[in-house]
Amino acid sequence: MNTNILKQQIELKKSMLCVGLDVDLEKIPKHLLDFEDPIFEFNKAIIDATIKFSVAYKPNLAFYEAYGLKGWLALEKTIEYLNKNYPEVFTIADAKRGDIGNTASRYAKAFFDDLGFDAVTVAPYMGKDSVEPFLAFKNKQTIMLGLTSNPGAKDFQLEKLSDGNYLFEKVLERSKSWQNSHQLMYVVGATKPEYFKMIRQLVPEAFLLVPGIGAQGGSLEEVCEYGMNTNFGLLINSSRGIIYKSNSLDFAEAAADEAQRLQLVMKKYL
Amino acid sequence: MNTNILKQQIELKKSMLCVGLDVDLEKIPKHLLDFEDPIFEFNKAIIDATIKFSVAYKPNLAFYEAYGLKGWLALEKTIEYLNKNYPEVFTIADAKRGDIGNTASRYAKAFFDDLGFDAVTVAPYMGKDSVEPFLAFKNKQTIMLGLTSNPGAKDFQLEKLSDGNYLFEKVLERSKSWQNSHQLMYVVGATKPEYFKMIRQLVPEAFLLVPGIGAQGGSLEEVCEYGMNTNFGLLINSSRGIIYKSNSLDFAEAAADEAQRLQLVMKKYL
Repeated sequence: MNTNILKQQIELKKSMLCVGLDVDLEKIPKHLLDFEDPIFEFNKAIIDATIKFSVAYKPNLAFYEAYGLKGWLALEKTIEYLNKNYPEVFTIADAKRGDIGNTASRYAKAFFDDLGFDAVTVAPYMGKDSVEPFLAFKNKQTIMLGLTSNPGAKDFQLEKLSDGNYLFEKVLERSKSWQNSHQLMYVVGATKPEYFKMIRQLVPEAFLLVPGIGAQGGSLEEVCEYGMNTNFGLLINSSRGIIYKSNSLDFAEAAADEAQRLQLVMKKYL
Repeated sequence: MNTNILKQQIELKKSMLCVGLDVDLEKIPKHLLDFEDPIFEFNKAIIDATIKFSVAYKPNLAFYEAYGLKGWLALEKTIEYLNKNYPEVFTIADAKRGDIGNTASRYAKAFFDDLGFDAVTVAPYMGKDSVEPFLAFKNKQTIMLGLTSNPGAKDFQLEKLSDGNYLFEKVLERSKSWQNSHQLMYVVGATKPEYFKMIRQLVPEAFLLVPGIGAQGGSLEEVCEYGMNTNFGLLINSSRGIIYKSNSLDFAEAAADEAQRLQLVMKKYL
């Protein structure tokens, strides 16, 4: 998918919401454990309930790999369900992969071609030749870590370089010269609104994927205020805050309510 | 596994060789494609043939994920085969994962507990709280990217910081203060022997996992000369150079010959 469809969906649904499908069998409603594939049943119900308010879905691979074969199967079924029933929705494999050319191509093929995701998250540490293999896939988006919202972000991302810039600024700046860099998006955490202005100067056109609202405590209003651009330019993710709003029979309705609550805030900015 | 067993194996086999199991169905001998699980059949033959000369095996996850469910199954069977038949051998999931606490714990559980690997490779960009969840697993090793051997290493790893150090130096230095940092190893590429002295000053005791000999062109002699410490301190990886030495019926013998050739060079330093 190119970003035009994403922009249309944002306009149509008045939402920049991305729902993170981080499924933990210990947190989902107990009655789902009777199904043959509880992870998929949970995802399906969450997707159907939140689709009116959400333009993107983002399974984090760790949660699927943690369940081995059955996790992988649930992931396959989830992305297939999304692509079949809601082809207009933007799908992100949150994998944070980073490896060299040959190997990066393998990951890219797995997530883009075989599974059929629209986007993959990647890590920048290994540089250009670890990211360009993802960018080689036309009509697919590569979402690179920029400035994250966890405490450890200060360990390296906020190191000052000899030229006075932060490392994360160098990462954004340099990535713009890579082949097909127009297919890059960036992960920018929601707990640091003061950095959004710097980031928007460096990558004014790019979409930012913003985790860290809800469970991680970032302010949705500040993110919208400082992060948007003239093409909307934001995908705002909430995972646990939506999908685990209730763990009873009403979990899907509760998730929809929370998704709508966030959407109504975003609507004010759209 | 703790590193004492690894050190004993290095001493016993006079080898620091790690064999990279990066299986590509287009490169393995054609006759294996008739088996129900060609990837596992290939790995089994390579492992049995090279076990005399090798102290570690390292499947790169990208190659398995590229084959979806059947890839994951082949990975499970491979690590199970290694743990059952050669429990003394050191096993590395080359996954280069990097995500925050909650999610990192999921990856750690998947690779250490469920699959039963001795070590996992991780990326440092997200900092301390993306690595410590791996270090929390006792008797398991976490191998963090330090300085890699690909061209893109110069994009960020070799950026000079305001204090005059390279980013990769800061990564090594800072990681030493993390909880259970004695369980850290580091990925250091083989094509930059001039950096080994700097790295050995920063992490004199740690094991270094060194890819980049063979197919990627690094010098094995230089790596041994500059990289070893008094506890050996090296695991030297070759993947394609060993496993694709021949793609005929004699592939396992050819792999063993190449493994032995490398082992005989290492032996001079042990």
